[in-house]
Amino acid sequence: MRATLLHGAGDVRVETVPDSTIKYPTDALVRIVASCICGSDLHPYHSRKAGDGPARMGHELIGVVEAVGADVTTVGKGDLVVSPFAISDNTCQFCRENLQTSCTHPHAAFWDGIPDEGGQAEAIRVPLADGTLVKLPVDEDSALLPSLLTLADVFGTGYHAAVQAGVKPGSRVAVIGDGAVGLMAVLSAKRLGAEQIILMGRHRARTDLGREFGATEVVAERGEEGIARVRELTGGHGAHAVLEAVGHMPAYDQAYGVVRPGGVISRVGVPQYADAPIGFASLFGGNITLNGGPAPVRAYIEELLPDILDGTIEPGKVFDATTDLDGVPAGYQDMDNRTSLKVLIKP
Amino acid sequence: MRATLLHGAGDVRVETVPDSTIKYPTDALVRIVASCICGSDLHPYHSRKAGDGPARMGHELIGVVEAVGADVTTVGKGDLVVSPFAISDNTCQFCRENLQTSCTHPHAAFWDGIPDEGGQAEAIRVPLADGTLVKLPVDEDSALLPSLLTLADVFGTGYHAAVQAGVKPGSRVAVIGDGAVGLMAVLSAKRLGAEQIILMGRHRARTDLGREFGATEVVAERGEEGIARVRELTGGHGAHAVLEAVGHMPAYDQAYGVVRPGGVISRVGVPQYADAPIGFASLFGGNITLNGGPAPVRAYIEELLPDILDGTIEPGKVFDATTDLDGVPAGYQDMDNRTSLKVLIKP
Repeated sequence: MRATLLHGAGDVRVETVPDSTIKYPTDALVRIVASCICGSDLHPYHSRKAGDGPARMGHELIGVVEAVGADVTTVGKGDLVVSPFAISDNTCQFCRENLQTSCTHPHAAFWDGIPDEGGQAEAIRVPLADGTLVKLPVDEDSALLPSLLTLADVFGTGYHAAVQAGVKPGSRVAVIGDGAVGLMAVLSAKRLGAEQIILMGRHRARTDLGREFGATEVVAERGEEGIARVRELTGGHGAHAVLEAVGHMPAYDQAYGVVRPGGVISRVGVPQYADAPIGFASLFGGNITLNGGPAPVRAYIEELLPDILDGTIEPGKVFDATTDLDGVPAGYQDMDNRTSLKVLIKP
Repeated sequence: MRATLLHGAGDVRVETVPDSTIKYPTDALVRIVASCICGSDLHPYHSRKAGDGPARMGHELIGVVEAVGADVTTVGKGDLVVSPFAISDNTCQFCRENLQTSCTHPHAAFWDGIPDEGGQAEAIRVPLADGTLVKLPVDEDSALLPSLLTLADVFGTGYHAAVQAGVKPGSRVAVIGDGAVGLMAVLSAKRLGAEQIILMGRHRARTDLGREFGATEVVAERGEEGIARVRELTGGHGAHAVLEAVGHMPAYDQAYGVVRPGGVISRVGVPQYADAPIGFASLFGGNITLNGGPAPVRAYIEELLPDILDGTIEPGKVFDATTDLDGVPAGYQDMDNRTSLKVLIKP
């Protein structure tokens, strides 16, 4: 079968690899119908060392179950399923608390941590199929597939940011980053009833989509100027909830610059730093809460699915390009150049 | 009148200063009946530069109102009152959200930020008396005074840590630090129904008091050894709630070492650092929440007062020494040497 491998920074190749097969009785084998490239894939795309050997790529997928192991009971051959980016048994103590990203099962993992499987491929072995996969009540040629695919990561991740930040009717929200997750955070804040949603981003096509998703204002300025603008827009005190969807240090600096005393900074951009300001002047003095992390998107699928199925929301609009596997290397380049927002893959 | 001044690191003096007087119609003049030395007073005691000029000290006090300005309506001459360490109008948007430490009134301040007033003195001018002061239904010679004095800071601060950390029945809690605030955090976690309260501290007299206040285990080990011990005591996964009552970097390192995925680190020790680890390995990967800050103790006084008045709890046990003003410099030394836990001052 064919799959995407990252051989080093900037070096994406689609190659023939051994076919995925069932290894454990809790596995499912899934033929991939739709996958995509994630903004977080750009981090290793920038930094992976050639000496580390090639890495299989892709952690968002919808597919058709081809076969299941003997212990799998909730999905079967022919089912269309979506897989979150984290594999979980959905029964351990953390899963029961809706923190599937901290599942304690020995087979639990993030797709990015499994060396011989990846979503940007023709097929995939899904461990803990009962816990991980969710059946989708549509056909594989449904026009809803792009929106349903966002349940694998970006929509659930944006929603996690908004939920963790406690967004509720009346909230003043600032979203940092106009990538797919930032835009999903806007949509999520809107869904939770935010009164004001300020999107910080400078790519017009993206911020326009952000307005369509519910942003009430767009702030293109960065740094001190951007912070001053958000403070001005929020009556001088800052935003109750700041949803940080980038992961780089300047985004974090903006976050504590625009948050209101007593407010929350919720991070879902994977931090590309270890240490950052959390002392009296940044977080402590104003009793700021910092939370977020890898989103347990499995926890949100049943909640978000109906709004997609009935057309209330269309998160799939974040896909502005579609390719087959051959076009994946160019897709990485386009996303890195910001000429594509998010690339859908039909293998 | 006489008052305590810090002239530089280690240089505490009790001197004659101009009498405090009413300046604004919202002020009250209070004769101080009981005050104390705070663990946080030791930070400037270690670091204040002589060139910065002397600083008035003390931010916890109970006293008798001697006079009030024309606009003061809720307290009057002869009332026994307690003052939180933060002055607030208790009516602004932040005060109404119980974040009195972020009060927006121009006279709002922390006592430590007011250059010509301090609690370790014979008298004090209290700005925004209606918002700040709370009347106490006892006489000035009441045996409850030590416990009531803890409402000015340490009890409310420990309680803030526990409340912010979401301590509830069934919680496994780790308290870092066996100073007065750490011990109050233990008492607070107990009050909120925690199932397990692990006190990390190594001063036997203090940890014994911690056990009396509700600690179920004491961990004297520090660093990796202490972290391993707490993980072992919490079934391998760590504590739901970590109450950090120190403010130094090793305490923060312990905090993220012992917190459970999905758990909360609530800091009330004033951080003596600006930057600290908050990346994937420390906070992000496990969806850890970091919160806390200067406690809005004003918000908790009415809630905590009845349990003190009826003897259910006795937070005043943290005072293990009493002095008059002349003994204040020695009191600082004793607290710095850890020969006193917390020194009560009767001016």
